[in-house]
Amino acid sequence: MTYCSDCGATTEWQVPPDDNRPRHICSACHTIHYENPKIICGCLVTYNDQVLLCRRAIEPRHGLWTLPAGFMENGETAAEGALRETWEEAMARPTLQGLYALTSIPYISQVYMIFRATLDAPEHAPGPESLETQLFTADQIPWDELAFQTVRKTLTQWVQDQSRGSYPLHEIDITESERARV
Amino acid sequence: MTYCSDCGATTEWQVPPDDNRPRHICSACHTIHYENPKIICGCLVTYNDQVLLCRRAIEPRHGLWTLPAGFMENGETAAEGALRETWEEAMARPTLQGLYALTSIPYISQVYMIFRATLDAPEHAPGPESLETQLFTADQIPWDELAFQTVRKTLTQWVQDQSRGSYPLHEIDITESERARV
Ligand SMILES: [Zn+2]
Ligand SMILES: [Zn+2]
Repeated sequence: MTYCSDCGATTEWQVPPDDNRPRHICSACHTIHYENPKIICGCLVTYNDQVLLCRRAIEPRHGLWTLPAGFMENGETAAEGALRETWEEAMARPTLQGLYALTSIPYISQVYMIFRATLDAPEHAPGPESLETQLFTADQIPWDELAFQTVRKTLTQWVQDQSRGSYPLHEIDITESERARV
Repeated sequence: MTYCSDCGATTEWQVPPDDNRPRHICSACHTIHYENPKIICGCLVTYNDQVLLCRRAIEPRHGLWTLPAGFMENGETAAEGALRETWEEAMARPTLQGLYALTSIPYISQVYMIFRATLDAPEHAPGPESLETQLFTADQIPWDELAFQTVRKTLTQWVQDQSRGSYPLHEIDITESERARV
């Protein structure tokens, strides 16, 4: 942030009074512009023993497989955002089963909230951001063609949970050094 | 957002190509400025059968009781943010037990992530944003002096869970009409 979004003057990168870290502060109107992590919400959708993945039609990671997920919008709940993204990317309307994976990626200031959700019928299709959508059993998952480390870790948990028959919440952190190993 | 934070030109409120909702778009450099929900992270800290509350020294809701929580910062995990806020507001260093309440407040575009956390000793003290900190048993909770609806709902769940001896994740939504009834 170079310019104040309220008044258009230049900003300075300084620690405000009563704070302990630098912020963008307007040199004219003195507004403090905070920057905060972004939420990405989506679903791990299953139909019987299969999980629904989307092949990305957009960058980054064009052509690789991911869970339907995207940036949460203002004015919606986390669950509403997860279902909206699942419709937009995979044209599926599953039933939510609860939060399944909470993943923090501090080096890019993102938090993923992936809800588990189930389909009554294998109805899905690629939305505009997907090349294709497909249901995979655990042994069919395209591990070598996954888009993101968070997708890999969430699917790894799901494969284990499926064999045990229980799906507790997973709290996952991803470090920058893990990113390269997707 | 009236001015572009990248170039200082004025912005327009329009639906970008390939999007379905209006964004702030720069009239000069054409950058699309997205606005997204903010995360507030904190802890429900217990010591034996007591819960730790803070009396707010700041607006809004000055003088009312709350859980230690605040805006998640860039560069930290959700758990790190929850522990940082607990230290800053209640000068307590509890052990995290896992995510306990995920609350969406869509009308102000906030998501609360409250982790359950336990203290080995009743060590706490007010930080700069608190007037006092205090441990309360379930029947001592100051229900008439709570700061936020999300605090009320989270504490209500905790009282029930304590009587049952199990603490599952709670997914909570708060509507604008509920806000008035804090
Ligand atoms: Zn300004
Ligand atoms: Zn611009």
